[in-house]
Amino acid sequence: MTDTDTDLPETPFLEVSDVVERAVDAAPRWRTLEPAMRAEMLRAVADRLEGADDELVALAITETHLTETRLRGELVRTTFQLRFLAGVIEEGDFLQACIDTPDESWPPGARPDLRRVLRPLGPVAVFAASNFPFAFSVAGGDSASALAAGCPVIMKVHPGHRQLSARCGEIVCEALRDAGAPEGTFAVVEGDKAGRALVTHPDISAVAFTGSAKVGRMLFDIAVGRLKPIPFYGELGSVNPVFVTMRAAAARLDEILSGYVASFSLGAGQFCTQPGILLLPAGILDRDRIRTMVASQPSAQLLNDRIDGAYQESLEALRHRPTVEVVAEGSRQPDGARTPTLLRTTVEGLVADAEHLLAECFGPVSLIAEYDEETQLIEVAEILEGQLTATVHGEIDDVVVPGLLDTLAEKAGRIIWNGWPTSLAVTWAIQHGGPYPATTSPLHTSVGAAAVGRFLRPVTYQGVPDHLLPAALREENPLHLPRRVDGRYRSGSPPV
Amino acid sequence: MTDTDTDLPETPFLEVSDVVERAVDAAPRWRTLEPAMRAEMLRAVADRLEGADDELVALAITETHLTETRLRGELVRTTFQLRFLAGVIEEGDFLQACIDTPDESWPPGARPDLRRVLRPLGPVAVFAASNFPFAFSVAGGDSASALAAGCPVIMKVHPGHRQLSARCGEIVCEALRDAGAPEGTFAVVEGDKAGRALVTHPDISAVAFTGSAKVGRMLFDIAVGRLKPIPFYGELGSVNPVFVTMRAAAARLDEILSGYVASFSLGAGQFCTQPGILLLPAGILDRDRIRTMVASQPSAQLLNDRIDGAYQESLEALRHRPTVEVVAEGSRQPDGARTPTLLRTTVEGLVADAEHLLAECFGPVSLIAEYDEETQLIEVAEILEGQLTATVHGEIDDVVVPGLLDTLAEKAGRIIWNGWPTSLAVTWAIQHGGPYPATTSPLHTSVGAAAVGRFLRPVTYQGVPDHLLPAALREENPLHLPRRVDGRYRSGSPPV
Repeated sequence: MTDTDTDLPETPFLEVSDVVERAVDAAPRWRTLEPAMRAEMLRAVADRLEGADDELVALAITETHLTETRLRGELVRTTFQLRFLAGVIEEGDFLQACIDTPDESWPPGARPDLRRVLRPLGPVAVFAASNFPFAFSVAGGDSASALAAGCPVIMKVHPGHRQLSARCGEIVCEALRDAGAPEGTFAVVEGDKAGRALVTHPDISAVAFTGSAKVGRMLFDIAVGRLKPIPFYGELGSVNPVFVTMRAAAARLDEILSGYVASFSLGAGQFCTQPGILLLPAGILDRDRIRTMVASQPSAQLLNDRIDGAYQESLEALRHRPTVEVVAEGSRQPDGARTPTLLRTTVEGLVADAEHLLAECFGPVSLIAEYDEETQLIEVAEILEGQLTATVHGEIDDVVVPGLLDTLAEKAGRIIWNGWPTSLAVTWAIQHGGPYPATTSPLHTSVGAAAVGRFLRPVTYQGVPDHLLPAALREENPLHLPRRVDGRYRSGSPPV
Repeated sequence: MTDTDTDLPETPFLEVSDVVERAVDAAPRWRTLEPAMRAEMLRAVADRLEGADDELVALAITETHLTETRLRGELVRTTFQLRFLAGVIEEGDFLQACIDTPDESWPPGARPDLRRVLRPLGPVAVFAASNFPFAFSVAGGDSASALAAGCPVIMKVHPGHRQLSARCGEIVCEALRDAGAPEGTFAVVEGDKAGRALVTHPDISAVAFTGSAKVGRMLFDIAVGRLKPIPFYGELGSVNPVFVTMRAAAARLDEILSGYVASFSLGAGQFCTQPGILLLPAGILDRDRIRTMVASQPSAQLLNDRIDGAYQESLEALRHRPTVEVVAEGSRQPDGARTPTLLRTTVEGLVADAEHLLAECFGPVSLIAEYDEETQLIEVAEILEGQLTATVHGEIDDVVVPGLLDTLAEKAGRIIWNGWPTSLAVTWAIQHGGPYPATTSPLHTSVGAAAVGRFLRPVTYQGVPDHLLPAALREENPLHLPRRVDGRYRSGSPPV
């Protein structure tokens, strides 16, 4: 979403080394805590953040220009996420414990006693996002899921909200320490050099990143180019296309367009799930009507001057592409607040200039592409790059819909029907990810229960005596984990 | 394990393109088959291979020098693996189906209907191994798990068993076609250039590889350096250290050493799980006794002349390292058959020369490192690189054992107690993988039920009407899948 500056404070290299060393020391103690104890500590972090909500929201307002309502909502989401992941690790299925008892008849030779469980990778580096100062930053989803998995976290904060990050870092560290977590379980560092030092550090075992495709790809290349490559979970960007069928447009054009305008303008368009493209039947767009809708959106300052400048530049480039027409002209007010811009092209224009028109533009702008035939919806779906989301507004018996949904499922991590991508619930079944360049790791999600799995790797114990096994695999199942035994799932409920 | 020659037949580039195009065409039809139907087709492949067992084993003998017993066992393992994975996908948990019903009270806003399921990645390129002409080749574990997942497979065969690979390829294609699989679901190609063309092809969505660290790393670098990086599952190599405690050695030295000699000599030492290092208390090795044990092992030709030559070179280098002593001298007989070589050093020697002495040497050689104090076992464990396996021979109340097992679990994918790593069962709980350089992807396994997960990515459907959902997510659960509903696991058993 945005690059970071290079003239900002940097955590000195020696301090980064110290921080990693403390994380290495903390790792065995943090990972061997029973999940229920780590869960309690995550809840303690949530409680402390909640207790400091007024202070934190006030700091966040000064640094990000986001509204109080938005920031309070984001903080609720952040503390909920910590508690939700606490519940996920208490439930225990995240460890995927699995036991095969010995079987002499197993082909081609006998099967020994085999017990498999997931184990934390080790210290994880997390890069915070500019646009979610709480939910994708210091105590956000990547930190929460790595800590829940049993990995110490070193957070490279975002320069767009330094004060807030420092304060959140203090709160997280204090909460963990007071709850009994080992020293070194969590730390923050600042600056691009410190960030790169983390990615190259031999004791960092994985990286989670939310940010621009440019910076994300650069760090990914470093992570996979190491002597010992490590997993790099980058959430890079997405245009989140929305497809409106002819009959849906005929049935409820006004409702769809007002939802669209609200969604792409929300938070000054600074969501990774912002709908950047809307595919609409040709000839039905009432320009006056949609200008009114756009004009009714609140103006808002972008996160900071750098992002505002980058937006200005991208917007200028986009609006001057050959087939692009400006439908609603956004403005920049004296205080820096911007009103949204709405652009228009045709599907032919979109396809011919896909490299520029299907690229993410971070800020309050979106593009309507008009189509003549519904088959063009499939054509556009087929040329899409990987997306976090794809949305269809349709009628349930639209002929184009089944094929469209299937094509979109090839391209996106989340498929939304008659809704908008800018809401993202933290749940068991959510997926926030997608094929490259939406993320660098299509198998994973950065939000929801499954996010924990990014920081765990399997280890199988063969013939190991019961008392030498990790608790998760002992015969008596002292952690009450759900386990697969001889291929059958068994609930972990304690005997009553 | 071994590089491939460059003066061997090559599938022409245009033909590789055609093969990928056919796989792309097959992909939507193969992935939308119900898992139970794909399972039947995997079983049909197993049946056909089994029906041709005499022919295939005879071909394999001429090309690999492996014994008939070994090859028949490997073919049994291969057909069992196909049937086992058929059962895994029929059971259905591999799809990780998960449903969250709408919840207005979900913080920070309402939760919509969210349904998550795993979806096949698309066409997969598989690179066959030299040393398992059946189980890690044409119809081996990587192919079987990618096909089971719902991905078409293009197999780059190993030049060490071309005829066998061609014949197995025909059998797999025929079996799939006769069972009703779409044309293009499976194909074989030959040659390094064809292999590289697959890794760089924009329509290949993942690569599975078993082979040398050198070739594996080169292909990994290509896969992650693509404009659109793809997952690369490389199983590269391992020295599979074995640690013998003082009391275990005192209690049953002879039994341990004879097991060791059998394990490192098995199949002329050409297993990725061959124990390359044995840590033994100093001063107890009876050289005459162990020479007799080594001499009693059958001589065997290595897989082919190239591998024999590479072994000769590595062996020469290894035996002339400063601290290394030859305990049992192997020989090369006129027919090319080799007898095993056993080397010896001290732990000090091992640690000082770790780069050379802790490197995989592919062939019938292993190294005993003698230690004075059991704490040295932990020291060695700590300097290990990522391993497929690590083994401990101990007594259950040995003081060193808990710490040793925990350190080894940081380094290896499978921990074996009082056994040998060269047996590897295909089961639910098996893990065949490990941190780099054992593999390029520590989160995954190339053997067992979980191997299927390498080729699937999650997609969440938000608010999508029931009849437009994939069958796995429909309300009535027509596939009888186990599913997590509102956070709780529910078995997929049909109502009785």
